[in-house]
Amino acid sequence: LSSAQTSRSTPGSISCPICMDSYSEMMESGRLVVATKCGHVFCSLCLRDALKSSLTCPTCRQRLRPNQYHPLYL
Amino acid sequence: LSSAQTSRSTPGSISCPICMDSYSEMMESGRLVVATKCGHVFCSLCLRDALKSSLTCPTCRQRLRPNQYHPLYL
Ligand SMILES: [Zn+2]
Ligand SMILES: [Zn+2]
Ligand SMILES: [Zn+2]
Ligand SMILES: [Zn+2]
Repeated sequence: LSSAQTSRSTPGSISCPICMDSYSEMMESGRLVVATKCGHVFCSLCLRDALKSSLTCPTCRQRLRPNQYHPLYL
Repeated sequence: LSSAQTSRSTPGSISCPICMDSYSEMMESGRLVVATKCGHVFCSLCLRDALKSSLTCPTCRQRLRPNQYHPLYL
């Protein structure tokens, strides 16, 4: 495994389940880590794009309005 | 550095800034990772205890009501 792959599969580490980017890849490209009210974590770009198609959480499919997620500061 | 100390200082990894426990230590003791509306992360036990003393986020001191944080599923 490359270090990126290892990092993605480490419990407790942050990655986006849509683009699979790690925390450091998000930071390098100026994205934020965001968390939904239902407790799921994404990069800011993937969640924004997903909500254009459907107002549901991409992970658990609960209804998710644009004011029901927030950046995480880690 | 021990592996626990390394993990605590890795950007993008999860730890509680109050008790300093890592994600795996939280899980082993049955705690949850929680995130506040202001984007700060704690273990469920430390945040619960902190809110008994003051209804503010321990990290940024913004007002924080008990319904303004939620578990994170990582
Ligand atoms: Zn993403
Ligand atoms: Zn969700
Ligand atoms: Zn704690
Ligand atoms: Zn805060």
